[in-house]
Amino acid sequence: MANQHPIVEYTSQASWAMIEDKFSPYAKETLAKLIKFYEEEILPARNLAHAQLPTDEVQRWKTVIPVIEELKGKAKKLGLWNLFLSKAHYPEYGVPLTNLEYAVMAELLGRAGHMAPEVVNCSAPDTGNMEVLAKYGSPEQQKKWLVPLLNGEIRSAFAMTEKHVSSSDATNIRTSIRREGNEIVINGHKWWISGAGDPRTKLHIVMGKSDPDNKSSYNQQSVVLVPTDTPGITIVRPMRVFGYDDAPEGHCEIIYENVRVPLSNLVLGWGRGFEIIQGRLGPGRIHHCMRAIGAASEALDTMLRRVTDPSRKTFGKYLHEHGAVIAEIAKSRAEIEGARMLVLSAALQIDKYQAKGALKEIGIAKFVVPSMALGVVDRAIQAFGAEGVCQDQGLAKAWAGLRTLRIADGPDAVHIQQVGQRELKRAPGLVKKATALAQREKAAFDKAGIKKSHL
Amino acid sequence: MANQHPIVEYTSQASWAMIEDKFSPYAKETLAKLIKFYEEEILPARNLAHAQLPTDEVQRWKTVIPVIEELKGKAKKLGLWNLFLSKAHYPEYGVPLTNLEYAVMAELLGRAGHMAPEVVNCSAPDTGNMEVLAKYGSPEQQKKWLVPLLNGEIRSAFAMTEKHVSSSDATNIRTSIRREGNEIVINGHKWWISGAGDPRTKLHIVMGKSDPDNKSSYNQQSVVLVPTDTPGITIVRPMRVFGYDDAPEGHCEIIYENVRVPLSNLVLGWGRGFEIIQGRLGPGRIHHCMRAIGAASEALDTMLRRVTDPSRKTFGKYLHEHGAVIAEIAKSRAEIEGARMLVLSAALQIDKYQAKGALKEIGIAKFVVPSMALGVVDRAIQAFGAEGVCQDQGLAKAWAGLRTLRIADGPDAVHIQQVGQRELKRAPGLVKKATALAQREKAAFDKAGIKKSHL
Amino acid sequence: MANQHPIVEYTSQASWAMIEDKFSPYAKETLAKLIKFYEEEILPARNLAHAQLPTDEVQRWKTVIPVIEELKGKAKKLGLWNLFLSKAHYPEYGVPLTNLEYAVMAELLGRAGHMAPEVVNCSAPDTGNMEVLAKYGSPEQQKKWLVPLLNGEIRSAFAMTEKHVSSSDATNIRTSIRREGNEIVINGHKWWISGAGDPRTKLHIVMGKSDPDNKSSYNQQSVVLVPTDTPGITIVRPMRVFGYDDAPEGHCEIIYENVRVPLSNLVLGWGRGFEIIQGRLGPGRIHHCMRAIGAASEALDTMLRRVTDPSRKTFGKYLHEHGAVIAEIAKSRAEIEGARMLVLSAALQIDKYQAKGALKEIGIAKFVVPSMALGVVDRAIQAFGAEGVCQDQGLAKAWAGLRTLRIADGPDAVHIQQVGQRELKRAPGLVKKATALAQREKAAFDKAGIKKSHL
Amino acid sequence: MANQHPIVEYTSQASWAMIEDKFSPYAKETLAKLIKFYEEEILPARNLAHAQLPTDEVQRWKTVIPVIEELKGKAKKLGLWNLFLSKAHYPEYGVPLTNLEYAVMAELLGRAGHMAPEVVNCSAPDTGNMEVLAKYGSPEQQKKWLVPLLNGEIRSAFAMTEKHVSSSDATNIRTSIRREGNEIVINGHKWWISGAGDPRTKLHIVMGKSDPDNKSSYNQQSVVLVPTDTPGITIVRPMRVFGYDDAPEGHCEIIYENVRVPLSNLVLGWGRGFEIIQGRLGPGRIHHCMRAIGAASEALDTMLRRVTDPSRKTFGKYLHEHGAVIAEIAKSRAEIEGARMLVLSAALQIDKYQAKGALKEIGIAKFVVPSMALGVVDRAIQAFGAEGVCQDQGLAKAWAGLRTLRIADGPDAVHIQQVGQRELKRAPGLVKKATALAQREKAAFDKAGIKKSHL
Repeated sequence: MANQHPIVEYTSQASWAMIEDKFSPYAKETLAKLIKFYEEEILPARNLAHAQLPTDEVQRWKTVIPVIEELKGKAKKLGLWNLFLSKAHYPEYGVPLTNLEYAVMAELLGRAGHMAPEVVNCSAPDTGNMEVLAKYGSPEQQKKWLVPLLNGEIRSAFAMTEKHVSSSDATNIRTSIRREGNEIVINGHKWWISGAGDPRTKLHIVMGKSDPDNKSSYNQQSVVLVPTDTPGITIVRPMRVFGYDDAPEGHCEIIYENVRVPLSNLVLGWGRGFEIIQGRLGPGRIHHCMRAIGAASEALDTMLRRVTDPSRKTFGKYLHEHGAVIAEIAKSRAEIEGARMLVLSAALQIDKYQAKGALKEIGIAKFVVPSMALGVVDRAIQAFGAEGVCQDQGLAKAWAGLRTLRIADGPDAVHIQQVGQRELKRAPGLVKKATALAQREKAAFDKAGIKKSHL
Repeated sequence: MANQHPIVEYTSQASWAMIEDKFSPYAKETLAKLIKFYEEEILPARNLAHAQLPTDEVQRWKTVIPVIEELKGKAKKLGLWNLFLSKAHYPEYGVPLTNLEYAVMAELLGRAGHMAPEVVNCSAPDTGNMEVLAKYGSPEQQKKWLVPLLNGEIRSAFAMTEKHVSSSDATNIRTSIRREGNEIVINGHKWWISGAGDPRTKLHIVMGKSDPDNKSSYNQQSVVLVPTDTPGITIVRPMRVFGYDDAPEGHCEIIYENVRVPLSNLVLGWGRGFEIIQGRLGPGRIHHCMRAIGAASEALDTMLRRVTDPSRKTFGKYLHEHGAVIAEIAKSRAEIEGARMLVLSAALQIDKYQAKGALKEIGIAKFVVPSMALGVVDRAIQAFGAEGVCQDQGLAKAWAGLRTLRIADGPDAVHIQQVGQRELKRAPGLVKKATALAQREKAAFDKAGIKKSHL
Repeated sequence: MANQHPIVEYTSQASWAMIEDKFSPYAKETLAKLIKFYEEEILPARNLAHAQLPTDEVQRWKTVIPVIEELKGKAKKLGLWNLFLSKAHYPEYGVPLTNLEYAVMAELLGRAGHMAPEVVNCSAPDTGNMEVLAKYGSPEQQKKWLVPLLNGEIRSAFAMTEKHVSSSDATNIRTSIRREGNEIVINGHKWWISGAGDPRTKLHIVMGKSDPDNKSSYNQQSVVLVPTDTPGITIVRPMRVFGYDDAPEGHCEIIYENVRVPLSNLVLGWGRGFEIIQGRLGPGRIHHCMRAIGAASEALDTMLRRVTDPSRKTFGKYLHEHGAVIAEIAKSRAEIEGARMLVLSAALQIDKYQAKGALKEIGIAKFVVPSMALGVVDRAIQAFGAEGVCQDQGLAKAWAGLRTLRIADGPDAVHIQQVGQRELKRAPGLVKKATALAQREKAAFDKAGIKKSHL
Repeated sequence: MANQHPIVEYTSQASWAMIEDKFSPYAKETLAKLIKFYEEEILPARNLAHAQLPTDEVQRWKTVIPVIEELKGKAKKLGLWNLFLSKAHYPEYGVPLTNLEYAVMAELLGRAGHMAPEVVNCSAPDTGNMEVLAKYGSPEQQKKWLVPLLNGEIRSAFAMTEKHVSSSDATNIRTSIRREGNEIVINGHKWWISGAGDPRTKLHIVMGKSDPDNKSSYNQQSVVLVPTDTPGITIVRPMRVFGYDDAPEGHCEIIYENVRVPLSNLVLGWGRGFEIIQGRLGPGRIHHCMRAIGAASEALDTMLRRVTDPSRKTFGKYLHEHGAVIAEIAKSRAEIEGARMLVLSAALQIDKYQAKGALKEIGIAKFVVPSMALGVVDRAIQAFGAEGVCQDQGLAKAWAGLRTLRIADGPDAVHIQQVGQRELKRAPGLVKKATALAQREKAAFDKAGIKKSHL
């Protein structure tokens, strides 16, 4: 088993064997480079980044963390940059990596919390926003917003979710987007707008209703680009996730009150908002899932160190010698391996058939992975006892972040329903097969001279 | 079903029917009074108490929340005070309520978070500390510390858990408690000391090792009373629970460095620390469990309001008309009812046989209830979507608090092992019965003239 | 803890303490007598009864098992007879036991499989059929059928479930019951008719549609008494449960072809079939649940013997020293205790408010208990390895029987839905409370001079 | 998505995409041929084979089912024969298929119960026995036994498991194998010997202790070939699995009493029994797992037909419109997909590193798959109601067979422990990495001029 790719230390020999032959030499090399960068630069800076964020309620929202900016520079030089943007889908801006290839990288990045993806310019919501601009933006919009985003010079927010309505059904959205002369006027009350707290964020991509009376509920929405310095934008407060504020990015409540932008800030065209958000929700969900698997893997590794730590013996035994610890470890490993294969196969389907052709696989990944990862992290927390729920291990924070994945981009129940409905569509074909079988079976009984009765 | 006690609205008709005949008239009346006070005073002040706590990092630890103090005064006047302290066990200081009777009250109080128990002077760790002082304190110690605690004039902390060691095995404790002339000198590094952040806290009850070489590991510990203004105590920082600091009480990391108190501050005697902490862990675990059931019940009620809210329809349907919501509600109700009966029966065992005679029942309650409550609250969070994980509903905070219950007072695994071991002790009796049965069976076969072979 | 009732060895001290004061002296004494009879007569005859049943496919359906008949005689003499029939509900025929009191006896009987309830004339479907006849039968019908059933001289079947339709929705039933002169003519195809294989069965109580066009789907059905020797009845085959045929009772497929009975065999009146089956489904479901708890308790006891058996050591350790066995035992104990309290509280609700007033509690018991018991038995099977799945232990057979409880008398999903719907009915009251609270809260904030904003 | 391989109808597009490039053209073609044979010959004969087995207790054990023999002839002609025996491992006898390639075929065969593998000469225990003979047999042994087994002319049994001892620890085995002159004499009491009931079975491969006092417990065993017509063999009875006797193969209890065979019937050499059984347990466990996945897939397809069947509506709705059915379908699909990928990746590891190099992956598959499949089949049973537990659908029988997989070839707990222990071995490497990281982190803090304290 010599000369294996270093990724097998972070995933597993078994899963790597399934996909190695699908990796280009460039992807293998980039992955190896990323691992080195992760070990030598990203991980050692993780706690430092935290320490460089002030604890003061006001200052923490005004801070650009020095070490992150420094690492961004290094990553860009190394070509570890915008890895999420597949050239196959975005020939002009993308990197020559497939979704499958990037998925493995995303898992690695997910081990180190929010900071790692940011360092290689692969962090949400910027990733989806770059996709929107690359896919639907005018050349002028791309020049003004996409290029600095691709360069990591600015950050951005995607303003869709609204207070007071269930926005998992996008037709419930109430924010008004209307034309007034050469301007677009926006009024609405959004919340959970990730990235809106960051001092580097210069752009909100805002979705709202421009034609609320359109008889097709899928043609009522439009999407508009709103610079953050436009008058009328109020950042009300950061929403907390459990007790975390996720500064400096945050997830903010925002009021748009008579916010005016030029007509040229409309994306794609009037009434095409639904089309845009559908297009935005492609591989992004897979990236989330792979990062979640990384978080689970990291938690399991952390747990392994803890339960074998001689200084943590109780009643004369190692922690792993008590009760069901071994079983929990085995179960966690099995769940991680199974979940990873599910997401990788979804990524491969996206590469082959676009996101549209991979909806069942994406849906499965989306409802399986976050719950799996929550379970693994929860077991690690329990192995750490009180230390597991606090700020000294990343476990509680990882758990809280993963918990939102069961809600974001559609709650579990929506994905479960959609996967179930897709399965139901197989029923008519199965009935047809059963009918054909019944005829053949009758012939077999007849030939054998036996009357088929009860079984 | 007329004229039912108002508690059935908060628990259930079925569980009340099982215990009503075990309630004294006084207990029924007190319970009714408590419900009224809860509805008219406690609940309306819940968010106000939160609003009266400054958000500033420093100030929030120096604040005595006005509305809580005001309500404490009202509660005391109404006789809704120290309800946890059973006269049967503490004739001098207790109230005429059994553990079973108080358990039902604790469930109600648990619906409203930390604040409700405090208002009626029934909040941990003061409760356990008052028990320690009432049971083991000298008259002088009782006068100085127990009386003001019973009066709600001061608060207190119990300093046992240590950093760097697994203190779920109490023999691992390292804090040194040694005699030097007429003084006791304490050196140690504790953390997760609840209440230590509160400006009203005047007393730490500290456990440590006074005789580390004693051949019996159960005679090495002693317990000492340490006033908070003693030199040498450093509050290092509050530990956070999933991001929450639980100010002003907090759960603090504390260094005791050459802290000196007079000999008279020793509790019970040298080497009797283990005995004291065993005695302290009696009904307290049941109170935690009942409050957890209250938290779960409150979450279910909150979820019921949400899923029937017409403004929350998606895709034209109420939330409760989607997927598995109804099933989750039914399951939650069933789990709450079952768990409540388990804890109530444990409370009854304590009333009949003391905590020592109820260890199996307490152990079962301890590992069943927190997980159950976490599950119910998690479902409610999911029903609320993003709003469920944030500061606008009490759900995420309730979840985080409940999560610590799977660790505090012994992690799940310890209780599971102990209950399992107690079950194993039934095996010899069962084997004996099986042997007797085999003889009778043989006689039956003989009488019937049939040879017993395989079944 | 001296002088405890012997039942605590079969249930638990904790659950007995909750209900002891609800037992009459007569019930306590009868229970003690039943325990003695169970230990000295029933259990020793269990395998003998099995041995007295021929293995031959034909003969096993023609056999009256001698030892069972013998024990029935003894039980009747001891007054351990028809214990299920509560005098409170059936003053003329019943015994002076409440449902709660009988529930504890049913648990004990459930430990020994089908044979134990039969010995004390408490086995389904006779129990429900006796209730139907006692409640709705004419004096003549009672004399002819109820009296010999109460005497244990004959057995009976209840023919409702039909092949080809989902009869969990009773309006789907297709069997035709029509009047022709002074006769009733029955045509239909039933299956899963328990007891229909037994040579002692003399009566089928048949439900069918007498008025299929009635605009109320609840008035289309009637119930008719059909003696088993009436021409036109064909027993097609026994249905197997997993691989068991449950001879001699069986669960048979039956065709009724122009079966004719006199008009006087109609029960209660034309179109009142739905009313009758509703009335039949009362405490019976609770009895099933209690027997299931008995089966689970017996499985746990069996498992305890196995995992402490020195001859079953592997790799030098007792089975209970491996992996998660202790945890499984603890969990099983906790689940049994919780489930028992749920069913006992449902039984108490029936005693207080009739079955109609206890529908939520019955529903909870119905979907919680079988799954719980299946889990406990499955763990015991696993502890026994291959021996657990075979004929040498009662575990596999118990499992198969319990599995049908998730389907019989309404599948889990129906009960879950009904409990969930009942919970939803609490929502309006909760909303009202929340509205009142909001007003009080506003007043509290106003009084404190604080503006309530975000939390 | 045109021109996809027909296997995607039986597995999924997503899993096929992951492995298609690992299939040789021969394997793809053979797989397509197998699918055709499965649809046109095997499935139509499934119920016929059942009907050709007499129900009489004695005759069913003497029957060679005609249609199975007929299909065996057809399969051999088509080259669909001995597909399990990989040429890479058995160059002389094997077929040019990898374990991964056969795994997919095994899943398909697993959809149709025991009969399908037999038809293509791939059924246990013959498969493992052929491996033993091919790997360890002398040329003479191979000629006499292996060749007719490879030809499907005879069947065989593997006699290891013993009554009265826990044979999951092979050192517990008691059967005596001793040399007496030129003969080997065998005495022992085995049970659960699959295939021993079949009239075509001509060979028992018997494991026992030849050197019980050898100080190495791994050198005490030997393996001997015993023709079934040797005097001294008593087939006591078939063991039943949840009521099923699995005739004609059965799983028999056998007594060997002074059974004598020539010395040349010893396999490999004295004291090498442990080595042989280790070698036998290679890919076989993966085949079981793949068949289990096939059984689960078939159950899900069956469930899909049921819940969309208009004749099964209740209360005016399709079954899939009730409660949690859709969610159960989605969950089942996700579980099947994840489990399949786990087993396929284990098969790939075997192909790359032999069974020895794939122990973690095999272990994971072994404890994940049977439980997963049991869950899926159980949901299908529930969807069918009473029909699901009986003989009219294959579901209950499939469930019973799957249940034994949690016990056979090592109970779940053994595999869980082994996987957990293998994970623990990763800990030292992780600690080393953590130490290196701590140094780099310190350097990063130093460089930034920040003192690392608490996080």
